[in-house]
Amino acid sequence: MSDKFLYRRALRFAETDMAGVGHFAAILTMVEEAWHAYLADLGECVHPACAPPGADPVGWPVASLQVDFLHPVHFGEHLAILLEVARVGSRSVTLRFTIKGPAAAIAQGSITTVCTTLAGSGQWSPRPLPSSLAGKLSGK
Amino acid sequence: MSDKFLYRRALRFAETDMAGVGHFAAILTMVEEAWHAYLADLGECVHPACAPPGADPVGWPVASLQVDFLHPVHFGEHLAILLEVARVGSRSVTLRFTIKGPAAAIAQGSITTVCTTLAGSGQWSPRPLPSSLAGKLSGK
Amino acid sequence: MSDKFLYRRALRFAETDMAGVGHFAAILTMVEEAWHAYLADLGECVHPACAPPGADPVGWPVASLQVDFLHPVHFGEHLAILLEVARVGSRSVTLRFTIKGPAAAIAQGSITTVCTTLAGSGQWSPRPLPSSLAGKLSGK
Amino acid sequence: MSDKFLYRRALRFAETDMAGVGHFAAILTMVEEAWHAYLADLGECVHPACAPPGADPVGWPVASLQVDFLHPVHFGEHLAILLEVARVGSRSVTLRFTIKGPAAAIAQGSITTVCTTLAGSGQWSPRPLPSSLAGKLSGK
Repeated sequence: MSDKFLYRRALRFAETDMAGVGHFAAILTMVEEAWHAYLADLGECVHPACAPPGADPVGWPVASLQVDFLHPVHFGEHLAILLEVARVGSRSVTLRFTIKGPAAAIAQGSITTVCTTLAGSGQWSPRPLPSSLAGKLSGK
Repeated sequence: MSDKFLYRRALRFAETDMAGVGHFAAILTMVEEAWHAYLADLGECVHPACAPPGADPVGWPVASLQVDFLHPVHFGEHLAILLEVARVGSRSVTLRFTIKGPAAAIAQGSITTVCTTLAGSGQWSPRPLPSSLAGKLSGK
Repeated sequence: MSDKFLYRRALRFAETDMAGVGHFAAILTMVEEAWHAYLADLGECVHPACAPPGADPVGWPVASLQVDFLHPVHFGEHLAILLEVARVGSRSVTLRFTIKGPAAAIAQGSITTVCTTLAGSGQWSPRPLPSSLAGKLSGK
Repeated sequence: MSDKFLYRRALRFAETDMAGVGHFAAILTMVEEAWHAYLADLGECVHPACAPPGADPVGWPVASLQVDFLHPVHFGEHLAILLEVARVGSRSVTLRFTIKGPAAAIAQGSITTVCTTLAGSGQWSPRPLPSSLAGKLSGK
């Protein structure tokens, strides 16, 4: 049970742009990647990847985010993405994130993702968080 | 009815890498983008985007490709992606492509995509080309 | 001279994810793409792409952004990205953006980019906005 | 000294498309990523990331590739990318690759990358392989 999660990986070549540094959209994608790793670490399933047969698929689209980019990051540099649970809503989770590079913080901000499921209409709709998840994210 | 198609667009900033040129995977993605534009131009539907209600969705995954990169391409440069139908199979289409930049050819190669549909199992499976499409791609 | 800019394009297949909708990072990349198109429309150069010989390259990294995603967007849907100048700083520009889809607003937020140049050290450093640009963005 | 290299990682959410599987360009980017990991494993530097002060930067653009996609890959599935040296040229390296998923091979093909350096003109030009690398890649 934890309300913090640390995810590590290096910046890849394809994530750089012609300014020689990590592109902002690639850096934000890492935050989503860290969130998915956090969910997996808590034993939660993202999308049909690990859903039990017959269970409705669960998705976590980004509803909002805010970020400040503090320092450029270069190809091959190792990053630590720290997630902290800021708010557990009935149908959404807000995380604060800090991305640390080898020498300094790269970026910090917050992101809210919504728990959704695929309705019969073929559209994703918000649904309550799995009850087990709410407790885990509250550090209980 | 045509067995050639020309698609134009400029290289975007996010498609460059730290070498200051277009990343190879972004360039290949443009070929797929051109193929989807070609299909739309022929009145064919890609995925549920424009499928009539009740029709099975159709997808065109890449089955194989071969490419030679001839010249780098830079941010903002205008590209012309020329597709030529090389082979119309019962369930696949092979296109030759040439990507031309402002001064020289950037890349050339061929790509084979397979006509698929979403089966009841939730898996995509090959299916025969829509009959109207086969004729159009043959230039008839 | 204008303090608004409208940029249009459709969502591409490669920008979707397995939830069947445009991925949030691809949508944010469109905002940068619109900003680059706005700069070009104002006669400003982004990166060496169009810099006069001998001029220092100018880059516009994202310093911060805030966004709310309001509605999903699907493959092939036509989007209108409206940029409005919110603040012209000495070394940065803040834009409000709204992305409109066929039926509803997809996303809205704000983004701040910093005017930088490549110093002798090989590092990008903030520099004052080109004086011509400041006036144009102020609608003067 | 080895002429084979194995690189592992899982498919990420942002690498899927609306067909629910890994997008072909994302899968090809993994091959480049594996090659960069191989170079690092051999003690070679890619781009300025780890170049000694004063050394010319070295880049490895893709010159050509050929690939067959054999099986779809899904979000979260663990992949093994096996590289085998097929040819060590004076200025290029050709690798055969096989990407294995949990149940079957996902893709196989070959890729040729060229050793380049940044000339005074600001353009990347082919250069001979570092002599140490040629030997290592030949399994000597």
